[in-house]
Amino acid sequence: MAIQFRHHHRVTYSDCTMGNHVYHARYLDILEAARGEFFRAAGVPLASLHQLELFFPVVESHLHHEATARYDDELIIEVVVTELDQQKIAFAYGVSNTRSQIILSGLTRHICVGADGKSKPMPPEFFNKLSLAFTGKTAAPVPLSARVPKMPS
Amino acid sequence: MAIQFRHHHRVTYSDCTMGNHVYHARYLDILEAARGEFFRAAGVPLASLHQLELFFPVVESHLHHEATARYDDELIIEVVVTELDQQKIAFAYGVSNTRSQIILSGLTRHICVGADGKSKPMPPEFFNKLSLAFTGKTAAPVPLSARVPKMPS
Amino acid sequence: MAIQFRHHHRVTYSDCTMGNHVYHARYLDILEAARGEFFRAAGVPLASLHQLELFFPVVESHLHHEATARYDDELIIEVVVTELDQQKIAFAYGVSNTRSQIILSGLTRHICVGADGKSKPMPPEFFNKLSLAFTGKTAAPVPLSARVPKMPS
Amino acid sequence: MAIQFRHHHRVTYSDCTMGNHVYHARYLDILEAARGEFFRAAGVPLASLHQLELFFPVVESHLHHEATARYDDELIIEVVVTELDQQKIAFAYGVSNTRSQIILSGLTRHICVGADGKSKPMPPEFFNKLSLAFTGKTAAPVPLSARVPKMPS
Repeated sequence: MAIQFRHHHRVTYSDCTMGNHVYHARYLDILEAARGEFFRAAGVPLASLHQLELFFPVVESHLHHEATARYDDELIIEVVVTELDQQKIAFAYGVSNTRSQIILSGLTRHICVGADGKSKPMPPEFFNKLSLAFTGKTAAPVPLSARVPKMPS
Repeated sequence: MAIQFRHHHRVTYSDCTMGNHVYHARYLDILEAARGEFFRAAGVPLASLHQLELFFPVVESHLHHEATARYDDELIIEVVVTELDQQKIAFAYGVSNTRSQIILSGLTRHICVGADGKSKPMPPEFFNKLSLAFTGKTAAPVPLSARVPKMPS
Repeated sequence: MAIQFRHHHRVTYSDCTMGNHVYHARYLDILEAARGEFFRAAGVPLASLHQLELFFPVVESHLHHEATARYDDELIIEVVVTELDQQKIAFAYGVSNTRSQIILSGLTRHICVGADGKSKPMPPEFFNKLSLAFTGKTAAPVPLSARVPKMPS
Repeated sequence: MAIQFRHHHRVTYSDCTMGNHVYHARYLDILEAARGEFFRAAGVPLASLHQLELFFPVVESHLHHEATARYDDELIIEVVVTELDQQKIAFAYGVSNTRSQIILSGLTRHICVGADGKSKPMPPEFFNKLSLAFTGKTAAPVPLSARVPKMPS
């Protein structure tokens, strides 16, 4: 069974801007917090990857704002893995409020790099745990040579 | 019994700066989130005050940084009311990590204002709930004329 | 002649995260500052629109991170209008450093709304100024009925 | 002649919160940007100190909010050195708007540390440049043994 991951966030004054709505950039911060908890729930806390000098910087982000979130709203952030191989991972997000109103949908793409910022494949045990979260079953890593790059336009 | 209020915060990348420690200004954001939860726990959610056009802007803040917090640290924020009358409230904060290391101590002072930004006393029912959180017992509001201003230097 | 608009930003510690690079969400803040200066240069300062209760909330944002920006880097942000009618505007952005290295490309889409958050066409004098910035010549507003919606997938 | 340093900041939506005023924590970000430019003007760019593995983390901050700043306000930040020895530096700040209204006064204290976070005196050439900015004349560093600690309560 794939992980159906949900994270909660209470909107603060710090998140808001003029007109009493959440400032658009703050959603990327909120998604980051949710993503960190996803990795923990998948058994791959990002802090444990740091010890191996592995990082997942964001290389792309896309946000679609559907409705306004306001001070003190409780937001529910759903996180789903949409792409995975040993060198990259992508996530889709849905943010809604407790009245089931959709606030935002989003997507982030990440590559796996070392401390020097260069591409570095994630170790098989981490890949397997993320595969489980992705597909609901462990996957043998696909040989690098067999993979077609699919970074989107 | 006075409210002993604790809030938790997990440090994100968004909180951190160069050198992998929490950027000093982010503590004010973290304290704000804790303070909002304190008001809720005291039975006075700030959002309910907004409906009465009552706000508690920060007029002073003081932070003493004792140690460094890092990515993925779980921070425990303790919030205590240190001053209260119908026109103002002050809080002291202690932030520590799960190894009981003190990270930060802080203080914020707030005044109670209306939508026009002018001083406006909080209603007795809110004051009583905050008094309970402050002293552990409900307090009759002191008549305004009897109060000596005590905004500190 | 269309406005070729450039804005500069000096990277602060506040912009950075662990590993000494600019945190991805901060670019949206940086683009916002650049966009505000674009509107001013186009003769339509956003603060003057507020007085008419007109706002341009972000409804979509897309960021592609090409390279890392670091503390104290001077960033050059180029802003170009890519879509315009009386009810919406879109911008493309290019961010580079002083070594002409491309750091980021981005896109934001905005709708024109009133204080109630509902769609509200911008007044002709503002539209004309923005058209000049867009195409280099003033444009008669297209009748609403003649316009095909083109919000992208 | 001591450096009379001024920095300017244009208030963005990102700086603001509900009620259309600058969120209190953002002033620490604004002061940081001003302080970075002060160091540059004093001939000691912080990025050049990084190359020597020298950092000036904030150990204390104090903000007094006098008035509200709003979207698009131009803020003038004055920065003055108030304490200096080879192991620490403190700054006072005044923030005002272009109508000469005082918005905020503040103070930050910093220690000089190495990459390990431990105290590390700054090299004489940097100290001398900062002394010049502080007192208007170069100063022989006071021997450490002769200094009375004066970190405030």
